[in-house]
Amino acid sequence: MKHYVFGVDLGGTTVKIGLFNTNGTLLDKWEIPTRTEDAGKYILSDIALSMNEALERHGINREDILGAGLGVPGAVLDEKYVKPCVNLNGWGGFDAAERFSALCCCPVKVANDANAAALGEMWQGGGKGSSNMVLVTLGTGVGGGVIVDGKLLTGVHGSSGEIGHLKVNPEETALCGCGKCGCLEQYASATGIVNQAKRVLSACDTPSPLRTIENLTAKDVLDYAKAGDAVALQIAEFCGEVLGRALSIVSCVCDPEVFVLGGGVSKAGTYLIDLVQPAFVKNAFPAAESTRFGLAVLGNDAGIYGAAKLILDN
Amino acid sequence: MKHYVFGVDLGGTTVKIGLFNTNGTLLDKWEIPTRTEDAGKYILSDIALSMNEALERHGINREDILGAGLGVPGAVLDEKYVKPCVNLNGWGGFDAAERFSALCCCPVKVANDANAAALGEMWQGGGKGSSNMVLVTLGTGVGGGVIVDGKLLTGVHGSSGEIGHLKVNPEETALCGCGKCGCLEQYASATGIVNQAKRVLSACDTPSPLRTIENLTAKDVLDYAKAGDAVALQIAEFCGEVLGRALSIVSCVCDPEVFVLGGGVSKAGTYLIDLVQPAFVKNAFPAAESTRFGLAVLGNDAGIYGAAKLILDN
Repeated sequence: MKHYVFGVDLGGTTVKIGLFNTNGTLLDKWEIPTRTEDAGKYILSDIALSMNEALERHGINREDILGAGLGVPGAVLDEKYVKPCVNLNGWGGFDAAERFSALCCCPVKVANDANAAALGEMWQGGGKGSSNMVLVTLGTGVGGGVIVDGKLLTGVHGSSGEIGHLKVNPEETALCGCGKCGCLEQYASATGIVNQAKRVLSACDTPSPLRTIENLTAKDVLDYAKAGDAVALQIAEFCGEVLGRALSIVSCVCDPEVFVLGGGVSKAGTYLIDLVQPAFVKNAFPAAESTRFGLAVLGNDAGIYGAAKLILDN
Repeated sequence: MKHYVFGVDLGGTTVKIGLFNTNGTLLDKWEIPTRTEDAGKYILSDIALSMNEALERHGINREDILGAGLGVPGAVLDEKYVKPCVNLNGWGGFDAAERFSALCCCPVKVANDANAAALGEMWQGGGKGSSNMVLVTLGTGVGGGVIVDGKLLTGVHGSSGEIGHLKVNPEETALCGCGKCGCLEQYASATGIVNQAKRVLSACDTPSPLRTIENLTAKDVLDYAKAGDAVALQIAEFCGEVLGRALSIVSCVCDPEVFVLGGGVSKAGTYLIDLVQPAFVKNAFPAAESTRFGLAVLGNDAGIYGAAKLILDN
């Protein structure tokens, strides 16, 4: 009997690693630095070494390991091939499942990190109990993952769940990080909310405490909106409207049971849902108006949970 | 050995019925009227009777029938429950698979008609060879179907693939048939193209042969655009841009290999693709820019093909 799985979340700065039992309990988690030098050639062996150390630490035999799931910050094809990752100095362009499996001596499956996070939230987080869920991660950018009947949609080009790049405003002239214009990310990420705040603040003279903050953050905008500042509220409602409308579009494509909101911006809690859900209902196809909204609960651990779940799913 | 399947496409006016062998060859097809009187109580028994007559006509034993697939003009849950259908005087609100199965004495699966058409085009039509496909039907309205790994996405509320109701224009004030505003259908259906043409024609004085046509159709607009009329071209490019942008959004959610365009408007052929694809590429997430475009080929038979395929899939 194989009793354990590893969930690995490979980021641009650190690698998060989790050891789980097959019931889904996280037994241990730790981080190691991501060595991106030499085109990242040490990344996978560093992880394998760290996993071996954990097995020794816990007195677990290698034979008891069912497998290791790996989340990476880039597009993934067929649960194995990783396209070059911008955040890892171009690391990728090969079958990472095969290469990592040869180093850690167990079966490996690979997924995009945002997709893996969605799987994690479905399994043990804000989407628990539902097998049809969309996770929207509102952080520096906007990421996402689409789960249908308990399985991740990955897409033919590895870009399923790129919710941040839905074109929500054809009139936008500012460039998104993806090179196009008018993406959801430009309105609903932490960065996007700040940019929209600057636009609104410079377009009016209405007094607002936001004007006195030197390094304005999305949290400032949402905190002051919650406290009743009219300008902050205008910004928050605008960004919430764009996000709600975008999710109504997602619903017309895959019609999930629940949208789970995660990432730093989601720390605003139910206040964020109260901003987004009315705009969703206003724009949704009538049959789907009752789609639920929830909050992510696993935080930075969503990725390791989802990576582990990749292995347990088969 | 069971050698045959029925594919049934239940419409508001007629029921199309096809008899297929399990290799996917259409052996016979015919139509019967849809009797919507008495809340449609005769619909399913009329179909079952007609199927029986076909078995006699072809000298086929009932035991050789693997099953019957049924496409209906409404939302379907779990391949069986049909929500009340507006086009059938409210017929529905019950487990149509169970009810129909008891009448035709074989296993039954039910799908939304636009979804069934997508399955048909994937199986034997414009999407043949691909198992990740989105069909967009540009007719009186805009319908669609999303296929991932060879399976239809149906959605928790039965509204997966409601591509026609993607909100593409938050500024729109005209109402869509669904009761909301700014849906793709208002720009890319045959009706939508005519309405946009009227808007453009009334907003300018530029001479155009379109002004002399009494009952303007989408075909007129596309024919004159193709022939080089500047106003018709402006309308066609606008509608094509909206559709291309909408499909870029669909791609961010489910990232298909190919978009197949069907319905009356798609009779414009590759000219339509030439209008839509550049707008798709302009707006698509970079990894998905190479997504292919094709044309539906089964016409009004797509529904019976897809309904039959429902049965062959399991």
